[in-house]
Amino acid sequence: MDFFDAVKARRSIRKFKDEPIPEAVMEQAFEAAVLAPNSSNMQTWDFFWVRSPEKKAGLVEACMKQSAARTAAELVVVTADPALWERANPEMISFVDRVNAPEPVKDYYRSYIPASYRFGLASPLGFAKRLAATVAGLRRPVPRTPHTLRDLQEVAIKSAALACENFVLALSAQGYATCMMEGFDEDRVKALVGVDGSSRVVMVIAAGREGARGTWGPQFRIATGKVVHRV
Amino acid sequence: MDFFDAVKARRSIRKFKDEPIPEAVMEQAFEAAVLAPNSSNMQTWDFFWVRSPEKKAGLVEACMKQSAARTAAELVVVTADPALWERANPEMISFVDRVNAPEPVKDYYRSYIPASYRFGLASPLGFAKRLAATVAGLRRPVPRTPHTLRDLQEVAIKSAALACENFVLALSAQGYATCMMEGFDEDRVKALVGVDGSSRVVMVIAAGREGARGTWGPQFRIATGKVVHRV
Repeated sequence: MDFFDAVKARRSIRKFKDEPIPEAVMEQAFEAAVLAPNSSNMQTWDFFWVRSPEKKAGLVEACMKQSAARTAAELVVVTADPALWERANPEMISFVDRVNAPEPVKDYYRSYIPASYRFGLASPLGFAKRLAATVAGLRRPVPRTPHTLRDLQEVAIKSAALACENFVLALSAQGYATCMMEGFDEDRVKALVGVDGSSRVVMVIAAGREGARGTWGPQFRIATGKVVHRV
Repeated sequence: MDFFDAVKARRSIRKFKDEPIPEAVMEQAFEAAVLAPNSSNMQTWDFFWVRSPEKKAGLVEACMKQSAARTAAELVVVTADPALWERANPEMISFVDRVNAPEPVKDYYRSYIPASYRFGLASPLGFAKRLAATVAGLRRPVPRTPHTLRDLQEVAIKSAALACENFVLALSAQGYATCMMEGFDEDRVKALVGVDGSSRVVMVIAAGREGARGTWGPQFRIATGKVVHRV
């Protein structure tokens, strides 16, 4: 499907038909998701495709039984965790060597990434780094974040959101509907998919074929001129 | 362009050709951006299309003069601010009346949204709400966030990221390249586009026609099987 048609066809659908999604359709959506740009290519995201009937029932509960979750053919939990830099970075270090990337790129993955993502000492170190940035920033432009675990989670959540958008558009492009849900019990969802620590639940995505009364009305956006500003 | 071709063609490009982007191409990308799903349709995002040569030069400085910013034909600053609920919500209240939406939807915009987004008393109220959720959560699923300004900013940043992804894919679908930049001085960028308070800079997007050596190597992702889990 044409890109703009896929964007226009996508609505948040809250009631799905009782019809399965072929596995190949879901797999193509996951492939599109992981092609999303992401911070330093650390891919600090995970996609839990919840297939077991028991876990699905638990997830519907954790989503406060909202109709999108109840009627979905498939449910996907997307999580983000800055600690996952340790999964991708060794692969990136091998990769930049293998393709003989420029030296600054090699240094970036060897030195800069570990320095940025190590947040074991989060609070005191983060405070010191933030103070140093504030002082240096009086004279010249400096990055103001990330200095704390919450900052790093924010970066990871942002990257995961990009992947989520690719995912829902990829389903739209194949004729399927989705609903991005943020109304859930994060603690219960984490336990259900088996993540903990610094991991965050970005969203739960419900997917299926659009059902009758899938939306409560037409699409609405405030005028583009109110949000796009030429400066 | 086909959706999946647009996704596959997108790479983070760090050197652009000295070639302008037609205004209509940019406008179509902004239209796609605002069609992204977003939290409660509060559209807590702003897109600053930086056109003045003085502001552009300032933005390149604030992006630490990275090559993607220096060589970009166009630069767009995307911000997110939970306080913007007050811009969209009155329009949503009129809209749900006009289309005669179901009562729970009308209540959602009349009562639930103001209660969720009013964070003037952020810290003490947030703490009390979080405590109440923890207690209630012992017995049943409850939403764990948002209770604080930072939580609300996280929601707003997540929604803005979805719009950013639509934006870069829309340029890709029209044959143009982009680079999402997170390396910038947030304080200086906020001052430059004229936002303050609870507003956050989500990213600065560089756009243009891909130049020679726009990337330092081929695209790399860790194996999909490592990030997509069937549970």
